Formats: sequence, structure tokens, C-alpha cells
Amino acid sequence: MNPTTGAAGKPLRITLDSRDNVAVVVNSGGLPAGTVFDDGLVLVDAVPQGHKVAIVDIAQGDGVIRYGEIIGYAVTPLRRGSWVSEFTVALPAPPSLDRLSIATRVPPPQTPLEGYTFLGFRNADGSAGTRNILGISTSVQCVAGVVDYVVPLIKERLLPRYPNVDDVIGLNHAFGCGFAANAPAAAVPVRTLQNLARNPNFGGEVLVVGLGCEKLQPEQLLPGLAAAAAERNIVRLQDERFVGFKAMVDAIIDRADARLAALDQRRRESCPASDLVVGVQCGGSDAFSGVTANPALGFASDLLVRAGATVMFSEVTEVRDAVHLLAPRAVNEDVGRALVREMAWYDQYLAAGGADRSANPTPGNKAGGLANVVEKALGSAIKSGTSPIAQVLAPGERATTKGLIFAATPASDFVCGTLQLASGMTLQVFTTGRGTPYGLAAAPVVKVATRSDLAARWHDLIDLDAGRIATGDATVEEVGWELFRMILEVASGTKRPWSDQWGLHNALALFNPAPVT
Amino acid sequence: MNPTTGAAGKPLRITLDSRDNVAVVVNSGGLPAGTVFDDGLVLVDAVPQGHKVAIVDIAQGDGVIRYGEIIGYAVTPLRRGSWVSEFTVALPAPPSLDRLSIATRVPPPQTPLEGYTFLGFRNADGSAGTRNILGISTSVQCVAGVVDYVVPLIKERLLPRYPNVDDVIGLNHAFGCGFAANAPAAAVPVRTLQNLARNPNFGGEVLVVGLGCEKLQPEQLLPGLAAAAAERNIVRLQDERFVGFKAMVDAIIDRADARLAALDQRRRESCPASDLVVGVQCGGSDAFSGVTANPALGFASDLLVRAGATVMFSEVTEVRDAVHLLAPRAVNEDVGRALVREMAWYDQYLAAGGADRSANPTPGNKAGGLANVVEKALGSAIKSGTSPIAQVLAPGERATTKGLIFAATPASDFVCGTLQLASGMTLQVFTTGRGTPYGLAAAPVVKVATRSDLAARWHDLIDLDAGRIATGDATVEEVGWELFRMILEVASGTKRPWSDQWGLHNALALFNPAPVT
Repeated sequence: MNPTTGAAGKPLRITLDSRDNVAVVVNSGGLPAGTVFDDGLVLVDAVPQGHKVAIVDIAQGDGVIRYGEIIGYAVTPLRRGSWVSEFTVALPAPPSLDRLSIATRVPPPQTPLEGYTFLGFRNADGSAGTRNILGISTSVQCVAGVVDYVVPLIKERLLPRYPNVDDVIGLNHAFGCGFAANAPAAAVPVRTLQNLARNPNFGGEVLVVGLGCEKLQPEQLLPGLAAAAAERNIVRLQDERFVGFKAMVDAIIDRADARLAALDQRRRESCPASDLVVGVQCGGSDAFSGVTANPALGFASDLLVRAGATVMFSEVTEVRDAVHLLAPRAVNEDVGRALVREMAWYDQYLAAGGADRSANPTPGNKAGGLANVVEKALGSAIKSGTSPIAQVLAPGERATTKGLIFAATPASDFVCGTLQLASGMTLQVFTTGRGTPYGLAAAPVVKVATRSDLAARWHDLIDLDAGRIATGDATVEEVGWELFRMILEVASGTKRPWSDQWGLHNALALFNPAPVT
Repeated sequence: MNPTTGAAGKPLRITLDSRDNVAVVVNSGGLPAGTVFDDGLVLVDAVPQGHKVAIVDIAQGDGVIRYGEIIGYAVTPLRRGSWVSEFTVALPAPPSLDRLSIATRVPPPQTPLEGYTFLGFRNADGSAGTRNILGISTSVQCVAGVVDYVVPLIKERLLPRYPNVDDVIGLNHAFGCGFAANAPAAAVPVRTLQNLARNPNFGGEVLVVGLGCEKLQPEQLLPGLAAAAAERNIVRLQDERFVGFKAMVDAIIDRADARLAALDQRRRESCPASDLVVGVQCGGSDAFSGVTANPALGFASDLLVRAGATVMFSEVTEVRDAVHLLAPRAVNEDVGRALVREMAWYDQYLAAGGADRSANPTPGNKAGGLANVVEKALGSAIKSGTSPIAQVLAPGERATTKGLIFAATPASDFVCGTLQLASGMTLQVFTTGRGTPYGLAAAPVVKVATRSDLAARWHDLIDLDAGRIATGDATVEEVGWELFRMILEVASGTKRPWSDQWGLHNALALFNPAPVT
């Protein structure tokens, strides 16, 4: 990083790579035309905060370079000091998937980081939860009203008797009735629901509420269990033994009671940091995402990987344009090919719907200074740190390795969150430039701001301010270590992130690329 | 209808059309092999309730006929008295869309039904609601946690001061962040959200909570309004004037207060039945759906149309195989072609995902005696009654005509319900054979059972028992009139259906055929 500034309060801009021909304006509120930087650069145009200024003359057709990569081509000559807006940068073709270097620059193992622990809930399968939650799975949205009716009753009547249980949540979703089971893509939502029930934060105490006539039969959510065992975990509302609504309610409460009693036996115990499964995501990104929060998160990701933990990054359309930087880090040829497979699947999925990756970024991303999806992706992929990519998961698959994992998901925050939960994520770190009140009921979410003014304004929604990096008040390494320690505290339940303090939780949003019938 | 029985408690079967070569067993629990009907028919196999028995010998390859239509072809010889299960009936090709008779049998106008009224809430646009609800629209799921936080506060703090307002609900959904705005199919969820906000039950007092950076900008939900007017109806959480979470909450509460005050001025007043917009749907169907509940609902639909009301039926995959019976009823060539267009769109949508209409029915439908989607569709379409089809809507479009309307939707209950709300539906009638606790927060849902044993077992979930038709205890006409009167009572707020009494409400489930990014 190279912040160029004079005295405090002076014009401030940032370049991250010596090859860059643009810099990002740091000052809150942006800078007016005529602004003179200490090194003599004069702004030809007003440049909003987070937006880019040409630091050399860029000829029409030449590459606009940020992060040392071409993020697009100048559609007009861009004079030194002029604003490089989204309208002056033409989107380049995405990196070819056929000519990628795979596993050619596998990072060497970093020094293991030992002695870091958190207080987790140990599960029979060896995993460890950061929370002790009764999750009530549902096989179809038809039952959602009943689950919404029962959950508050369980929390009111039963939960006080089980002080070691953190919460009771209904895993409602808009799926399960009319879906095309034979459509190839239907496997995605089905395995997502199966794996959601297995999230370590639910402690293996599965309870499924189903209807009975639905296409997705309740026992499909319990694929590992024998029929009799599965039946003990299922309440089917159409079961003929239920006479009247109250009988259904009582049956669910009764099954919930047994599971709460089992969950209540669990105690937090010291677990090595290697038991953590941390998902990383960004949302409402801006041009600072790749400068402050994501580099700090990338540093923390590396610390987690060095400590033996699992870290998953996601969001296919936000890594697609950085895949040439990621594929060389694949730990082997198979993992690299799986990465290419997920990129190709998504390319095809978007094309089939008449769309492409340019559907990302959003208006807010653009207002925040991101010219296009290439710039967004380069800034987004930074949060993966520098570790080798140990595994690639298709959407909703469960992680089976430690280390850094690419879990393919859409970039849409709540869809990504749902899929990472299915992949086994027990804590999420979420970086944001524009700000979002996003949270998850099933796992704590630590929110990191890219800008100090957002962190100050949203003082009771943002958990960590990475904007200090842009102003020179902290280094990437310092904020990365802060975040790493905060992750351990939040995982231990000794610190509650803001979304949990307010109870701000987004509903599950299944990714269903198959048709509904 | 032709119920064939002896004395009470005797074996009972039903055929609806004189051309049928199968009948449906009525008796609860089914009938064992060897059962002798009064007319001498002997069951060769045990036949479950709702399932079909061959009433003549059917040769291999011959049509199996129900409702006077071929529902499939016998894959083996089916002797008189044998069980005609789903495994013995081969699915026929769907009716060709190229050779349909359109508008060739437009039913003549029926005698107008005058003098029927309900107590509704009159809106400025001339429509009338059956409820007086503050609906809080959202432009993106990111804000859902905040809306879920605020709505109970509004209900607790403000609603008691506005006794004429029925409810406050958040219109949360899993859309709005990363979506492919340029994908042709993205128009469906966008217009659905736009039209949902305009549902007559929300009284035109629109309030939108948005984030700020989302792809679906909040003002897109208010397409008719000038910018300044739109801004008065929008709270954007990223708005820089909000310092801290409480400021956002207070702003939403403040805007809600103003809208509640306006809604509270409204009083129920006598409205002609022609102001009703009734959606009809079936879910968890069985073989009785087409014998009892749907014919009664079809009769009530005709009464509503005669009274000048709007009735919308839906569920493309459940009318696709009856389209040759519906297209001739189109009021004109344009409407008929629109019907064909919607069928063709769905055929293509399913094919693109590697599926077809055989993805419907569900396991529960089959257990209830429905051999395939043809039999299901023939029974389903009956609830449209006999009126001319006056308009055809693409998914999420708003109705602009009175009379019988085909509103194209998936068959999935909660997706269909959401789309009918967008089309302006203010009360839904839902027929069910297997049973579902389905309900909607935005409009009352009257649930009609196809079988008396379901109605008895779910005595506090089912509003009307149409099973009496199968047992000969009531006629289609009698139950149809009962239902018509119940619709007027429920619309008037003088009768609350069971789903509202328990508060069993399914979340909105948007139909999004476009890719997510």
C-alpha cells in the first residue's frame, strides 16, 4: 500500500501496486477539481470518495490498471488527474478458462500458528459448534406457518429449562413442494437442506417438520439415517394420528423437548482454533473493500489457515475475473479443475438466463467507486489471503478438508450465507463498504467496515473498523490480528456481534437453479 | 356425478362422466379385494381410498378415461374390478399448442347475480380491500432483519392507537441484491414486487424499506410515482442521516405512523360483490379434488363471476393438460393466444431446466389416487367453473378485467399465493385433499377439504368440508353456495378463517425464473 498524502486532513489517495495507473481517493466526501496533492498531482475533475483518479496519462484503448491488473480499457483518453468513472472503462473479456495455469504457484506452507483456542461445543462427529442451537428443519414451505407458531412457544415454555442451549430456530425456506426432482440442478437445493441440518451449530440433534405430500420427502433431509431412526426425527403434519392443530403443535414441542434435553448436556470446552469453520463474504462493497477490509480479512484468513482452521470464500461472479490469480494457488490439478468447473457452470447458468457477469456490480458498488465486476472481483478475492486452495465445493456441498476452501455460491449475500451454512460454516466474517444490517440466526456474523465513516455512523451495527488502514491509523497486519482475535472471542460466545445483540437475522434463501413446477 | 352405492356404509365409488372406464373409491381406508358393489362389480385388487378401479375391461394400450378424457394409456390389460394405479397408466403427450380451438366455445353470459355485497375497504383507485393492512415493502432481503425487528415494535407501540387497521406486515423476500436485471425473466420478480405493494388490502399506503446499494432500487417498487413522492415513501438504511441502528428504526416507525393514521381513517363499507378479487388454488390434491372441492369451488366461481367479481385461477402445470378444454372458453382470439403463450413459456422454462410437466404431481398426490399430471390437471381446472376466460396474466401481472382470469403461476402453493397477491387477489380459496396449514398474511385464505375425514381430523384448520359431496350428503350446488356465502363473510371480516385465527401465514415466495448473480 502506498498512501500519498501531506499533513493530516490533506488530500489522500491510495495505490496498492506499483504498476497501477490509477489511485483511489480516500477523503470522506471526495475531492473537488483543482485539488493539489503534495506530490503535485492536480485533480482535473471532482472525484468522489472511493473513486479512481488517473495518476498518469492513459491513452484511449490502454489498460486501466489497479491491483497490478487490467480492470478495463480506457474508452477515451484519460488525462493525469481526471476521474476514471465506470463510464470511461470498457469491460474486458473474462479470463479464459481453457488456458489457466493450475497449481503452478502453490504457496509453500506457512509457519503453523499454535496455541490458539476457542470455547466451542464439541460434536459426536468431531466438529465443534460456536453456538448450541436447536435447528428445526423443514421439508417444505407449507409447514412454515406452523413452525413460526411453535418456535416462540418452545422458546417460552422449554428454553428456560435448558440454560446451555442458545436458541431455537426454524429453518424455513421457499422450497420442497413443486420442484422438478429430475432436473439436474435440483440437487443443489436438496443437498443444501440436507447439509444445513448437519451444521455443527445444531449439535446433531436434528428435528424435521414435514407436511407429508411434498415432493421433497422429510426423510430425504436425513439421508444417513436408517428409516426407523429417521422417523424418530420427523413430525409429518398430515400424519393421521394428529387430530386438530394442537396435536401437531404438541408433537413438535414434545420432540423438541427431547432434543433440547440432549443439547443442554453440552458445555463449551476449549477447542483448538483448527476446529473453526469460518466463512468470509463481502457485501455492499466499495473501492475500499480491496484496500482495507478485504486485505485485513485475507491476513486473518491466513492466520486461521496457519492455525489449522477451515476458511471458505465464495461468490463466483466476484472471483470469476480473478480466477487466473486463484487457479495457480490450487493445491493440485484436481482442485484447480474443480475451480474451473464451478466457473464454467456459472458462466453457463448465467448465459442460459440471458445474463452474464456484468449483472454484478450493483448501483451501490458503482457509487462506491467500483467501475465494474473486474475491479470488484480483484478486491473481493483478496479476502482469501495467500494460502493454497485446498478444496472446491459445488454450491451447498459440505467441506471435508481443513485449510482454505472455495465454496461456490452466488454473490447475493443471503444466498451465499445460506450455502456457507450448508457447507458447515460456524462463523462468518462479512466486510462491507456501503453497509448492511445482514446477520444469520444459525451462526454469528462479524461485520467489518471498509471505511471509518461507515464504522462511525453505524457504530452499533459494525463490529470492526478496517477504514483505519486507509487513513494510515492502522496496518493491514494490525487489523488482521484484531479480527483474528475477535473471531476467537465471538466463536467462544464471550463477544456477541451487533447483529446478534439486536437479533437482526436474515431468513435462509436457498439457491435453486432448477425450475419450479 | 354418479355415486354407485348400496346402503349407508356400503362400498361406494364415483364416476363423473358417462364415458369414464374407471371409478374412484370413496370409502375411507379403501376397499379390500373381493369387495362386491351393489351393481355386481367385484374388486380384483384392494383399492385405496381415492384410487381408481376399472369398471370395464381395458385392453393394453387403450385409453384410461376419467372426466370423459383420456388420462393415459393402459400399460397392461386392466380387468374390470382391478386397481388402476399410477404404474399401470402411461402418461400421454400433452395437448398440442398448435392445434387448439381458440374462442370456439365461449360460454354465453349467465344470468347476473345481483344484490350480493360485502363490507370492504374502498380504495382511491376504485378497488376494495378485504383487510386494512399496513404492508411494508422491501427492495432487498438485506433489510429483512430490520423489518422483522421493527414490525413487532410498530404493532406494540402504534397499532393499538389505530383500531381500524387490521395488521402490520413486512413484505420480506429473497430478492433484490444480486440479480441479473438484463435477463428477460427478471421482469417477473420485479413486477411481482411492484404489484404486491399495490394489493388492495394495503390501501395504497405504500412504505418501502430499502438498503441503498441494492440492484433493485427502492424507487423501482413505486414506478407510478414522481421522484419526490416516491422519496416520501422510502426509508433507505444507508441514508447518511441515520447515525446508529435506532435512527433507522425510528425513521421506519415514524413513516409507519403517518401511514397508519391514514389507513385508520378507513371504515368497512358495503361494496358490491363485483369488487371482490378471489384467487382459487388447490394444494395437496387427491383424486377427490376433481370430484368434490374443485367442482364446488367451480360452482362458487361461476356465482362470483355472475355477481360481477374477478376470479383468478392459476398453476400452469396443472392446467397444461386441460388446455384443450380451456382455450375454447377464451373470450376472444387474443386471450386464447395469451393462454397458449403462457403454456408455451412454461414448457420452454421446464425444458431449459431439464424437466417437464411430469415433475408434477407430488408423492402425496399419487398416494391420494392421482395417477399423473393429466388426471391432476383435469381435476384442477374444474375449479375455474364454466365462465368465459376474460383475461390471461403472465406471472405477477395485475388484473385489469373483471370476470374469470387465468393468472399464470407455478403450481407450488406459496409461489402461486404470492403471485396471485401481486395480481390483486384479496381473498383466496384453497382446496386440499391431503391437507396443508397454508395461509397468507396479506389476504384471508378459506380452506376447503376434498374429503370429510380430513375435514373432521383437521377440524380447526379446514374451513369447509366438501367431502359431503362424495358421500351424497350434499350436492355440488349446495356446497358451492355455502362457499360463496362464506367468501362474502370472510371478505367482510365477520368470519375469520382458521389460518388467521391461529396466525398461520406462509412467507412470500417470489417466482424468479432469472439467474441470481
